[in-house]
Amino acid sequence: MGFELQPTTEPGRRFVAQAEAHARDFATRADEHDRGATFPLENMSALRRSGFTAATVPHELGGWGLDSVLDYAIGIARLGRGDGSTALAANMHVFRTWFVARAWRASQASGEPAAAKRSAELLRGVAGGEVVLAAILSEAGTDHLHIRTEATRVDGGWRINGRKAFGTGSPGATVLGILVRYPGAGGEPRVALAHVPATAPGVEIKHNWDALGMRGSGSHDIVFTDCFVPDEDLADTGPWGRYTERYLAGNAVGTLGLVAVFLGIAECARDTILETIAARGSAGRHAVQQGVAEMEIALATSRAMVERSGRLMDAFFARHGHRMPPLAELHELMLDFQCTKAVVTQQAIVVVDRALTLSGGSGYLSKNPLSRLYRDVRAGPFMQPFSPYEALEYIGRVTLGVLEES
Amino acid sequence: MGFELQPTTEPGRRFVAQAEAHARDFATRADEHDRGATFPLENMSALRRSGFTAATVPHELGGWGLDSVLDYAIGIARLGRGDGSTALAANMHVFRTWFVARAWRASQASGEPAAAKRSAELLRGVAGGEVVLAAILSEAGTDHLHIRTEATRVDGGWRINGRKAFGTGSPGATVLGILVRYPGAGGEPRVALAHVPATAPGVEIKHNWDALGMRGSGSHDIVFTDCFVPDEDLADTGPWGRYTERYLAGNAVGTLGLVAVFLGIAECARDTILETIAARGSAGRHAVQQGVAEMEIALATSRAMVERSGRLMDAFFARHGHRMPPLAELHELMLDFQCTKAVVTQQAIVVVDRALTLSGGSGYLSKNPLSRLYRDVRAGPFMQPFSPYEALEYIGRVTLGVLEES
Amino acid sequence: MGFELQPTTEPGRRFVAQAEAHARDFATRADEHDRGATFPLENMSALRRSGFTAATVPHELGGWGLDSVLDYAIGIARLGRGDGSTALAANMHVFRTWFVARAWRASQASGEPAAAKRSAELLRGVAGGEVVLAAILSEAGTDHLHIRTEATRVDGGWRINGRKAFGTGSPGATVLGILVRYPGAGGEPRVALAHVPATAPGVEIKHNWDALGMRGSGSHDIVFTDCFVPDEDLADTGPWGRYTERYLAGNAVGTLGLVAVFLGIAECARDTILETIAARGSAGRHAVQQGVAEMEIALATSRAMVERSGRLMDAFFARHGHRMPPLAELHELMLDFQCTKAVVTQQAIVVVDRALTLSGGSGYLSKNPLSRLYRDVRAGPFMQPFSPYEALEYIGRVTLGVLEES
Amino acid sequence: MGFELQPTTEPGRRFVAQAEAHARDFATRADEHDRGATFPLENMSALRRSGFTAATVPHELGGWGLDSVLDYAIGIARLGRGDGSTALAANMHVFRTWFVARAWRASQASGEPAAAKRSAELLRGVAGGEVVLAAILSEAGTDHLHIRTEATRVDGGWRINGRKAFGTGSPGATVLGILVRYPGAGGEPRVALAHVPATAPGVEIKHNWDALGMRGSGSHDIVFTDCFVPDEDLADTGPWGRYTERYLAGNAVGTLGLVAVFLGIAECARDTILETIAARGSAGRHAVQQGVAEMEIALATSRAMVERSGRLMDAFFARHGHRMPPLAELHELMLDFQCTKAVVTQQAIVVVDRALTLSGGSGYLSKNPLSRLYRDVRAGPFMQPFSPYEALEYIGRVTLGVLEES
Repeated sequence: MGFELQPTTEPGRRFVAQAEAHARDFATRADEHDRGATFPLENMSALRRSGFTAATVPHELGGWGLDSVLDYAIGIARLGRGDGSTALAANMHVFRTWFVARAWRASQASGEPAAAKRSAELLRGVAGGEVVLAAILSEAGTDHLHIRTEATRVDGGWRINGRKAFGTGSPGATVLGILVRYPGAGGEPRVALAHVPATAPGVEIKHNWDALGMRGSGSHDIVFTDCFVPDEDLADTGPWGRYTERYLAGNAVGTLGLVAVFLGIAECARDTILETIAARGSAGRHAVQQGVAEMEIALATSRAMVERSGRLMDAFFARHGHRMPPLAELHELMLDFQCTKAVVTQQAIVVVDRALTLSGGSGYLSKNPLSRLYRDVRAGPFMQPFSPYEALEYIGRVTLGVLEES
Repeated sequence: MGFELQPTTEPGRRFVAQAEAHARDFATRADEHDRGATFPLENMSALRRSGFTAATVPHELGGWGLDSVLDYAIGIARLGRGDGSTALAANMHVFRTWFVARAWRASQASGEPAAAKRSAELLRGVAGGEVVLAAILSEAGTDHLHIRTEATRVDGGWRINGRKAFGTGSPGATVLGILVRYPGAGGEPRVALAHVPATAPGVEIKHNWDALGMRGSGSHDIVFTDCFVPDEDLADTGPWGRYTERYLAGNAVGTLGLVAVFLGIAECARDTILETIAARGSAGRHAVQQGVAEMEIALATSRAMVERSGRLMDAFFARHGHRMPPLAELHELMLDFQCTKAVVTQQAIVVVDRALTLSGGSGYLSKNPLSRLYRDVRAGPFMQPFSPYEALEYIGRVTLGVLEES
Repeated sequence: MGFELQPTTEPGRRFVAQAEAHARDFATRADEHDRGATFPLENMSALRRSGFTAATVPHELGGWGLDSVLDYAIGIARLGRGDGSTALAANMHVFRTWFVARAWRASQASGEPAAAKRSAELLRGVAGGEVVLAAILSEAGTDHLHIRTEATRVDGGWRINGRKAFGTGSPGATVLGILVRYPGAGGEPRVALAHVPATAPGVEIKHNWDALGMRGSGSHDIVFTDCFVPDEDLADTGPWGRYTERYLAGNAVGTLGLVAVFLGIAECARDTILETIAARGSAGRHAVQQGVAEMEIALATSRAMVERSGRLMDAFFARHGHRMPPLAELHELMLDFQCTKAVVTQQAIVVVDRALTLSGGSGYLSKNPLSRLYRDVRAGPFMQPFSPYEALEYIGRVTLGVLEES
Repeated sequence: MGFELQPTTEPGRRFVAQAEAHARDFATRADEHDRGATFPLENMSALRRSGFTAATVPHELGGWGLDSVLDYAIGIARLGRGDGSTALAANMHVFRTWFVARAWRASQASGEPAAAKRSAELLRGVAGGEVVLAAILSEAGTDHLHIRTEATRVDGGWRINGRKAFGTGSPGATVLGILVRYPGAGGEPRVALAHVPATAPGVEIKHNWDALGMRGSGSHDIVFTDCFVPDEDLADTGPWGRYTERYLAGNAVGTLGLVAVFLGIAECARDTILETIAARGSAGRHAVQQGVAEMEIALATSRAMVERSGRLMDAFFARHGHRMPPLAELHELMLDFQCTKAVVTQQAIVVVDRALTLSGGSGYLSKNPLSRLYRDVRAGPFMQPFSPYEALEYIGRVTLGVLEES
């Protein structure tokens, strides 16, 4: 019967099937891009051509109408089996598009035609394959709540200055979605999401990503120098330094996709070592059976967690419709998701570790894909928010109802 | 929103609600039965009066029509919050009844009116509250595949001799479902399931259960001495010493219920210590937050695993209808379930451990329910099949396709 | 060759050999005292008769001259193999005596004949078997730094009021060593150690110890009501609420003995299950070998940690002679010991857990000593200072040099 | 006071001090050799010049007279702080030399002047810095007990054919110590240790080491083609396919050195992140303190285990003098050491993992040494014998006294 995660909607099945096809292709180039730390532009092109990048665009705007968060995460996990770097980059587009689609529906429902029109234009661009988004969220030395990139008021819009880090997917994106700090009406710091063309004057992708793993993810630093953004491309998300509805919703959904990548990497490690065992004819050895069992348990756990969080999110957003859910409920959703993140990113590491152990040393050689997976999978616990120790603090505080105290 | 597991069917919601009501009541007596190692007959009576024991009897036969394995497991988990011993005992009735109901439908579908009639009678007895079943599966010094209790041919039926152990729920049962070894047509050893009235001549419940925990579960030894069983109450389940369809299906479903008990115990430990923390006003302490977070992660993991296995089983039996699924598929189902069993019974122990740690020593006192939960929860890994190390071997072998080799 | 810990001095060898002899005897009564939660007064008498309680009294004063902290810990571990409760109780005498002996030498070295005389008297009483000490350190709802038992100035001495908890060994002690808060010269709160005869007016041992495990340890509450202590029996140990040299030295040495008890319990669990395996003839089973290996690894780890901390302490006190070591160095010693405590108390739990798993259910029965060891061993992480999570904070802070910040 | 391991003998102190000096130097080139997967010949030259490679040569033959296995392991650990690859390579020389020195003494004691003379020559070469040994033990697809490299009888000696793998240190060695299979007097397969000049005809170092980590260790494949070895350079070690005294003694001592390398790597990771924390001023954060505490506990455990095994080995060889200890005792020594290996290689991984977590993402960048340590440290569990799962089997079997059964 097979126990891999299965999509629950029709667009989800299409998305997952397409992801599997892409993964087979991407797997053939993953080691090469890893060695050179090159961004797989051809992969991104393939994702645009196949319509994969249009999956979360509503039917009415030319997309596949993928709405289920669970199905989206499953598709990203499948992509991660082929190439974790590309899956990571693709996620930064797919989840952003999912939110733009949601904003489009909300604008329509609430009678905001101008906003709806802008969202629709962006989504049609995505559907047509001309637009690829990348959500660029991190900055060195601070967290997502305390963004330092600054937007200053100028005539008709804003000037943006700052430096982003871990700009995953940026080399393949046409539009960057970035968080900026800007002064509210009373001068108080607020946060906004700005959509900036990747080729806009003042945007410089530093092409400096050189890391232990996820080397093909293009996670470069990006510098913004007096970069102009018109009013309509900058949308307030709430007060700076505080948890907001958009922060929580965005990070729960978007980071679930990131977490799913590591499930995909773990599944790839498992398949890789099972092939090795079959080739060696060593399935009868106790030590082999034990290691395989530990992998299966870790994988079953990871799948159960991704599935549960995906289902909870689908039910959650279905219940709230186009309205933004209240903060307290979003914290509970985030709490649950942080449990999933903690477990899945850790268990994925366990799976790769056991595969290496079972390889008996051959997996340690550079030519063996396991040596790449060992490096890629360690990126999991870094996915924000939160760091592993901070996640414990967050989970504990929300459970105990003392989030705001310190 | 709350993250406890939620039933997915109407009968399931009724079952779970009733379980919660019972749990509140049972909790008031759990410590007393624990101290005296007494079987809570009043709890079993309450379960009969409320219709809880009739839940898995089909509507047509006067029951609640509970069919979902997931919902059944959730209900048992809820019961486990109040009293693990009673939940364990109740499970041995509920899952057996579930299988009798399934057999009844299969008999009807395949045109076996005599078998259908006998099943219906039993189920009507359950629905009316006169009949309580207990599946008595274990024997000391052997495993479920190699049962030693012997059925010998006599006129019109069989004489049963042997000794069962861990006879959970036996003091509250009117009918015992036991496995026996008997000679097949060619003299080869086979296994059968016999239904024996608890008061039949030759049945002796030893009332000798005195254990570390689960002290109210009435898990006595039961001795069968020349106990007569008529032909129609003994049903072949397959060759002795071999995995059979009935063995796998029965143990997957029945043991999921057992595993759910330990989720319930963990949830109780969590609620207990959260109350203590609230009373102490110590929620602001880092150490407290960390411990609580570790409990939440372990609970989220356990819930996700129970939910996933329950869903898989529901989909599995729905797909196969009344037919017995093929052995190979049942092994995959069992493999998945063994992952769940390994994780949940272990994580439940983690939750109770953290609760004890957070108690700061007060949880170690006999008067604190945590001291009982610490003893009860350790029964989890003993639930059969398999022992923890054997489970690794089984999972490894099934995954590698070498189950039969040794 | 055997890998159990071996004493390093001549008095240590005598102490350990005597401990082994006692352990064999105590083991025969451990289950009985556990069931009844009775204090094994006959064990304490045996320890007095054999001279075991006089081991840390200097030769010159009639004792065995046991000076090595490592050897003392090994002897306590051996005792713990026979009966954890008695070992715990014995520790509260032996380590206190060790410190009185140290104080006696320091008084002699520094020319304080009055203090030296009082110490010598006490030690001679111990050597003669008339005196048994018990250090009573804990109070409910606070930690060892923030003692609430109060000493108030009266003519010629102090009146003590307060309630102690976890008064391990109190039923067998003739003299209780307790910490009290008292007003310093400027009225500021300070801490003192008072030696109080167990039969003094105003001392009431509540005989209320009823706990999950360590049921024979006599860890009763003790209430002090206007209990008079003459000036010479109350010795200042430093400011209240602050780490002091005496606090750190006392708790490092004394708690190492407590930790050693859990090593002994683990060794007992290991021996118990190895006997079972031998009786069953199941040593050839892979699952058995795996479980045994996990026990061996956990035991080797625990022994290595106890040995390392004991050696470090012996070298440490040898280096400092009779002088009290400086606070900063004592914090480093405590840091190292907290690592040992964290690992040993946890690994001891692992050993008992594996033994239970290997027992296959029989270990869960009350008549099997493993069921007692499972309850006893869980006391380990409660040993003060610190709680497991607080220990992480302490270790982190000392390592990072920010102990005083908060 | 500091808790790093301290040598126990005078030559040991010299060795460790020299190792520390080398480590500071090697650290400056470690990243460069890692990037290029180049063997640090200049490091090996420095080790020869300083006399480090002569440390285990007896005083009488011009060396430092380092005899303590513990001290040798500590020195290797120190070297590992600077560059794990070089430490690994150095170990393959130092421990081989230790055994040659032991053989020299045994030959003298037993009156074998020819053998003593040859050993002395080799050792004098080492003392003079002309000779560097490398023990080359592994072959792909088999274990150390079932070597496939073949020695065939020819006039005056043997012709060797075969392929070795993981030939750590080979580019810097002048003499390779390799295991070969050869026919005994009755034609039965036996094992011998052959010393082969690295430049001998028929020796080809493939210079093909390209791995995940330990990239500067020169662990190339080495092919032997009709390579001639004179009789006196080939010494029988016992029957092929069976545990022998030499196998156990050699692997216990030699692999302890390998294991020590990973302690050194862990210590380096710890120091690296502590510097980062100090630079960031983040020592006051709870999450930081927790992570640091987990590192300290893992390091304390690793140190305790290395120290304990080293002490046990020193006492063991001291007890047996020049005689080869009996097989049964060597199995117990190996059992203890396998516990150490399991724990230290695993805990070293934990330390590096926590350091990475504390780095918050910056440690994942290639320019951060932590990213190299993460790759290097994963080599630990591959050190032979045994693989992690096989070690469990070995430990279990030896403990249970059923090593020979299967």
